[in-house]
Formats: sequence, structure tokens, C-alpha cells
Amino acid sequence: MDIIKPRTLSGFMELLPDKQIRFEKMVEILRSTYASYGFAPLDTPAIEDAQILLAKGGGETEKQIYRFQKGDSDLALRFDLTVPLAKYVALHCNDLAFPFRRFQISKVYRGERAQRGRFREFYQADIDIIGDGKLDVLNEAEIPAIIYKVFKGFGLNRFQIRVNNRKILTGFYEMLNLHEKSGDIMRTVDKLDKIGSDKVKTILLEDCGLTEEQAGEILRFIAIRGTNAEVISALEGYTGRSETFDQGLAELKAVTANLSAFGVPEENFAVDLTIARGLDYYTGTVYETTLLDHPEIGSVCSGGRYDNLAGYYIEKQLPGVGISIGLTRLFYVLDEQGLLNPELPSAPADALVLPMTQDAAPAIALAEAVRSQGLKVQLYCEQKKFKQKMAYADKLGVPFAILLGEDEIAEGKCSVKDMRSGQQLKLTAEEAAEHIKNALHCSNIPVILER
Amino acid sequence: MDIIKPRTLSGFMELLPDKQIRFEKMVEILRSTYASYGFAPLDTPAIEDAQILLAKGGGETEKQIYRFQKGDSDLALRFDLTVPLAKYVALHCNDLAFPFRRFQISKVYRGERAQRGRFREFYQADIDIIGDGKLDVLNEAEIPAIIYKVFKGFGLNRFQIRVNNRKILTGFYEMLNLHEKSGDIMRTVDKLDKIGSDKVKTILLEDCGLTEEQAGEILRFIAIRGTNAEVISALEGYTGRSETFDQGLAELKAVTANLSAFGVPEENFAVDLTIARGLDYYTGTVYETTLLDHPEIGSVCSGGRYDNLAGYYIEKQLPGVGISIGLTRLFYVLDEQGLLNPELPSAPADALVLPMTQDAAPAIALAEAVRSQGLKVQLYCEQKKFKQKMAYADKLGVPFAILLGEDEIAEGKCSVKDMRSGQQLKLTAEEAAEHIKNALHCSNIPVILER
Repeated sequence: MDIIKPRTLSGFMELLPDKQIRFEKMVEILRSTYASYGFAPLDTPAIEDAQILLAKGGGETEKQIYRFQKGDSDLALRFDLTVPLAKYVALHCNDLAFPFRRFQISKVYRGERAQRGRFREFYQADIDIIGDGKLDVLNEAEIPAIIYKVFKGFGLNRFQIRVNNRKILTGFYEMLNLHEKSGDIMRTVDKLDKIGSDKVKTILLEDCGLTEEQAGEILRFIAIRGTNAEVISALEGYTGRSETFDQGLAELKAVTANLSAFGVPEENFAVDLTIARGLDYYTGTVYETTLLDHPEIGSVCSGGRYDNLAGYYIEKQLPGVGISIGLTRLFYVLDEQGLLNPELPSAPADALVLPMTQDAAPAIALAEAVRSQGLKVQLYCEQKKFKQKMAYADKLGVPFAILLGEDEIAEGKCSVKDMRSGQQLKLTAEEAAEHIKNALHCSNIPVILER
Repeated sequence: MDIIKPRTLSGFMELLPDKQIRFEKMVEILRSTYASYGFAPLDTPAIEDAQILLAKGGGETEKQIYRFQKGDSDLALRFDLTVPLAKYVALHCNDLAFPFRRFQISKVYRGERAQRGRFREFYQADIDIIGDGKLDVLNEAEIPAIIYKVFKGFGLNRFQIRVNNRKILTGFYEMLNLHEKSGDIMRTVDKLDKIGSDKVKTILLEDCGLTEEQAGEILRFIAIRGTNAEVISALEGYTGRSETFDQGLAELKAVTANLSAFGVPEENFAVDLTIARGLDYYTGTVYETTLLDHPEIGSVCSGGRYDNLAGYYIEKQLPGVGISIGLTRLFYVLDEQGLLNPELPSAPADALVLPMTQDAAPAIALAEAVRSQGLKVQLYCEQKKFKQKMAYADKLGVPFAILLGEDEIAEGKCSVKDMRSGQQLKLTAEEAAEHIKNALHCSNIPVILER
């Protein structure tokens, strides 16, 4: 038979079991955290009508999208989870209760130029809250609580949720009579972290055509720093000059007002006037989340408030707020930075049952008994020498091996071997389950370990 | 703005939240059951090199596959999870511990002619155990235990795991000197349930060119019925005439020998000589699973033993055994047959917290407190009249609403309303969590309810 050399396409993540188990653990944390806030799981097709996915059209999306014909259908793979959400809500709006809260953790596809740490297939983990006509700002205030819970759930402490409000920026530019240039200016200011304030100023002067005074005002404005109270107090100085600004400030205050009730510590939250999120799409609160020790990664969880989710598909006004985590890239970076906790159990089983007798029945029953106590138990089925059995247990990385020979059977017990310490105990099936559970589950071992 | 009418492609399942929550519950049961037997989760790309996916080539697959170019890459969407598994094992064989046990619950794609109950995108929920060179028959014996646990986990009782061994069939045809026709004969016999024994006989005589005597032998053979012990005893009568047959019978006895140790009741298991699984791929034990009250659905979980997983990609001999559940179709059928349990909670939240005061802080803190007890809690954020709030709770289908007004705040309590009974209790946050947990989680409500 001709052999075709196996390969996985570049730009597609494919993990070995121990890494996959860590990845799944992160998905599990996302799923349970999102669900704990009353978000419903959603699963939309990966393939959609290309016309529908490209309704907004334009630029990078058209270039990157995987688009193909099947029969006479013009199809494409989704490139994000927001467009499919818009379609879903527009299509099913009569059957949904608004505000509609959904989470979706699914793969999306972008045929980008392949490069290190960039993926063509990657998971996004999104939540959105969609209102019918109106959506209270309190929803925007709840989002940081959810981001906080997710990242704490991963085991991270050194992260910061950075928040701004697009209306504050828009209103501020109105004050300077720079309303029409505000898009360009915001995109420039957005780069502050990457290129520094001198280069931002040069672009503002040369490319955006601002006066020295206007550029100075903008740089002074975005340099406002301090505690949330200090930033807000500085912003109060600008009130009364633009309705948009004043509304934005009111919204920002509403978002920060209840942080402690939401359980978000000040140290994990900052009002940051440099954040704009490039997209015109956002109209109110915007969010970015950075890992304090890894600013080079950029934002690991971003989103914001928008006013019109599904304008391409329906006349109904559907405002919303949402965030997205690029999970595949986040996992890749955490792994690369050595932040995945080596202490997290990453074997497929908690225990490997090794039958040491000809008749497998006692070992089968033992495995079932330990498994029924909520443990992951693999029955070793091969006829191999003892040494080879133990080598397999080692390679698998199982924390416990359970040996069952004639002696143990006669005593109604089994030998439980701690693979790390080498300690071996004779226990009943029930005791064995208890012993293993205590060893594995008493401590809540985080996926990520900061150094 | 031009409106594009939203639609979801035909042949693609897209569920409303209450159905999606039931679907997720089934996925959760599959995931935890598979994991409890020590299978590692695997996630391979949905897109692969078309040459690799089509290494085996042939027939329906080539016609149905979604295949497309991107740049100069010839790409395709996976049409099952077995071919990607073969590629994965061939590619990573040096890093895997054998036997390698993996589960994968992922979408696959087949551009079939759209018809009721047939999907172009659907979930398969697979497990496979892959050996390096050898794989003990005990692995084949364990598979029915896993199938049994899955279907019991769903809430089903009236199902039957039907097992046969390809070597018994092959050996039997050898005895009749029909070895060369055995493929055609097995494919014909496989249709027995659908077309009846008269038509099977006609095809055997006319299309396969068998003699009346040969056809009679075959029909007598596949008519062997009874308890497992009775069937095996009848098969013993054929021993000594074909090595293949004798080996198949030995394997079948090994698979049935430990059923009770594996916890599989006789009534959910049957040796059935009519099962062959059309594919040449299988070489030993084969499995089908039928719902006793819905034979028209056909097998809902099928698989078997094979000898060469990855021959297209690697010279290594990799025998294995695996099963697959077509989850999307199963869910569709269960729903259509009215078997989804209406009692299963299918709201996105266990409780909806309704703030009844201007200041939302107490309600926010209450929601956090109840949530921290492990419940799914949605904070209602909109400024609406009481009636509208309750209408939302109703439409969402949440089992409990938690009201927090001035009175409750003054007392340090909240009002917990059971949405079904209308009963309302004043409780502390902790008591509320306890009360709701007791009401929701004390009974283990199955996803599927047989009538």
C-alpha cells in the first residue's frame, strides 16, 4: 500500500493528550463560569451561507475567509462568533427571551498568513447580552465580574481589566471640534502602548492633520492616570461641554460604582482612557484585559457595548454587550511562557487497574467499583510482564496504580500504589477510592501558575 | 441599509436555548462517561489536507466531502473522526502511550442530499482503543460496559447492545466454500431486519449466485436465537471446521464471559449473528445498539474491532476497537419521538434575581452570594415594571425568582418564589441557595424519559 506521510496543516493546533487535558480544563472553567451567570450555551453551524457571513463585507474578512462552492451553494466557514450570533438572534428573535444571554465556545476560521502563535482555526469563548430595543448599563457593569471570575478560575492573579467608554472619547473629540476625525484619532491613540506617545503625536500631526494644540490636548487627556476615583474626578473637569461626553461619564461611573458588590477588587480593574477598541462597532463601554507580567501578549479578553447587533439581517434595534477570549492563542502563549501548572493532573485516568491473575473478572469488578465512586479508572487489558505494565502506568502519567493479585483477592483488598512516592497500601475498593480522591481532589489545583 | 434575510443552511442543526441545554447535557454525559474509563479527550482540526482525508478514497466519501482550495492548498472538512484519528496516531505515535485510549466528540461534515433527519454537519461521539502491534480481546469486552453506562446515563432502559464477531461469519462462509463471496453475503444478511428473510434469500440466490442449499444453511445459521448461552452453545456445534470460526467463537466467549463483572445486565446485551457492519474494515467483534421501542431508527451506537487503523499513513500495525454515536441524529430522533424529558430543567439559570430598589448593589451582592453556592444565577438588569420582570422570568423558564425590595433588605433576607407552585419564602441568601439546590438537584432527572 502507498503510504501518505501524515501531517497536520500549519496554523492548526493539535495537542498531545496531557496538553489537551489542560486545554479542556480551561474550557470547562469558561463554560461553568459563563453558565453560572445565566448565559445559555449556543452552538451554531461552522458553515454558513457566504452572503450572510459577508453581509458587512470589507477588507481583511473577505481575504481571510474560507469560502467554497458545494453544488450551487456559496458557503463559508465562520470567521468569528458575532456574525453567526447576529444571524441567530435575527432569525429566532420571536422565540428568544430578551435580554438574551448566550455563551459560545467554538472554533472559528481565518486563512491568515501562517506565523508563529497565529492560528487559522482557533477557539473563541464569547458571551453576549442582547436587548430588544434597550439594554441597561448595569449589564455593562456585570461584565468585569465575569472576566474576573474566569481569570481567577484559571489561577491568574496578576491581570487587569481595563475599561473605557467610547462616548467619553467621542464627546471629548466633539469638544475639540475633531468629531469627524475621531475614528482616525482613536485608532492612533489605541496604538499608544505599542508605539509610544511621541510616535502617536507624530501621526496625529502629520497623518490626521491636527494642530499642535489639539494633539497636546489629546495626549494630556489620555495621560490621565490614577485610581478609578482619581480618573473619574479628572474627567468631571470636562463635563458640561458635550452631551455625549457627559453620558459616557455617567455610564463609566455606573460601571465602576458597583465593582465591590460584584466582587471585583480595585487591583484587577482600571479605568484607562487609552482604550478605544479599533472597531466602529462599539458605542459605549469597552473592555480589554492584560496580563500584568506579559504586556507583550496584548489584550486576552476584549469587547464592549454596541448598539446594533443585527442591522444587516433585521430592522429591529438590538443593542448588546459582549466579550471574547481568543482561547487557542491564549493557551499557546501561556504554554510558551511556561505558565501551565505542571502540578495539574494531566493523565487521562486517576488510576490504572492492573489485573495480576489469569481471570480478569475480579479486576474488572474492582475497576467498576472504584469508578463508581466518581474516579477516572482505566482497566489495563494487555497480557504483559509486570515491568511493562508499570512502564505503561509511568508513560501515561497516572497518579495511582491499583494492583490485584491472588493475595489481594483472597483478602478482599487491592494494592494501591502512589506512582510518585512509591508508597503502597492494601485497601478495600472503597478505601482505595477514598484514598485516591483525598490525594487528588482535596486541593484545588489551578491550570495556570504564576511565578 | 439593505437587509439580507437571515437563514441557517438546510441540513445544519441549530437549536433554541432549551433544546441546546438538553443537547449539552447529553454531551456532558458522554464526556464524563468516556473520561471515567480513562479515555483522553482529543480535538483534531476540522480542516485537513484533502489528500490525507481521502487516502482511502472511494465512492460516497469523495462525493460527499466538502473540499476546497485556499491559496494553493487542497483542503477538506473531515467526514468522520476515524480518519483524523488514524492521522493523529500515525503522526504522534512516538509520543503516545499504547494502548492509546481517546474520545472525541466533534462535528463532522458530509454534503449529502438534504432530507428530513439527515444532517450535513453533525456530532460524532467516538471512543477508540489503539494498540501497538497487539491489542487484547479484553478491550473488546469492555466496550459494551461503556455503551451501557452511556445509554443508562441518558435515562434509557429499553435498549440492547447487539454483538457479533466477524471471524465467526468469515469462518462460517469458509466452511461453505463461500469465502470469496462472504463480503456480498454479509452485506445482504446485514439487511435482514430491513427487508426480511425472504428477500435476503432471493438476493443470495439471484445476485450472489448461491445454491438453494447454501442459502438455506446461511438462513438457518443467522436464525440462531436465544440467550447468550444458547447462541454460543449452538455455535459450538460448528467448531473444528474452520480456524477462523473457532477463533471468532473464542473471542465472542471472551466478550460475553465478563459481562456481569462489567455490570452489563443480560437484558441489555445480545449475541446476534445477523450483525456484520457493512465495512470490510472490521475484523473481530462488531457492535450495534438499538432502542427496543424504536427499531426503525436503526443502530444508535455502532463499531467494532479492526486490525489496521493507519495503514495509509504508517507501516506500523495499529489494531484497535472503537464505537461511534451519531449524536445529532440521535438527538433529532429522540426529540421527534417525544422522548426528551420535559421535567429536565432547561432554563439557562436556576434563579433570576430581581432588584426591586433603585440601588442595585444589594441585589448584585445577593446574586453573587447565591451563585457562590454553586447555582446558576442571572441578575435581571433592566428597569422594568414588576409585571414585565415576572413575564421575563416566565419566558426564560427559570424555576426560581428571587425578589429583593426594601423590606427584604431591612430584614437581611430575600423573597424566593417557586415559579411553578407560586410558593414564596423569605430566606437569607444562604438559605435561599440551599432551598433552591434541594429543589433542583436532589433528584437525578434524566435527559430521556421512556413511556
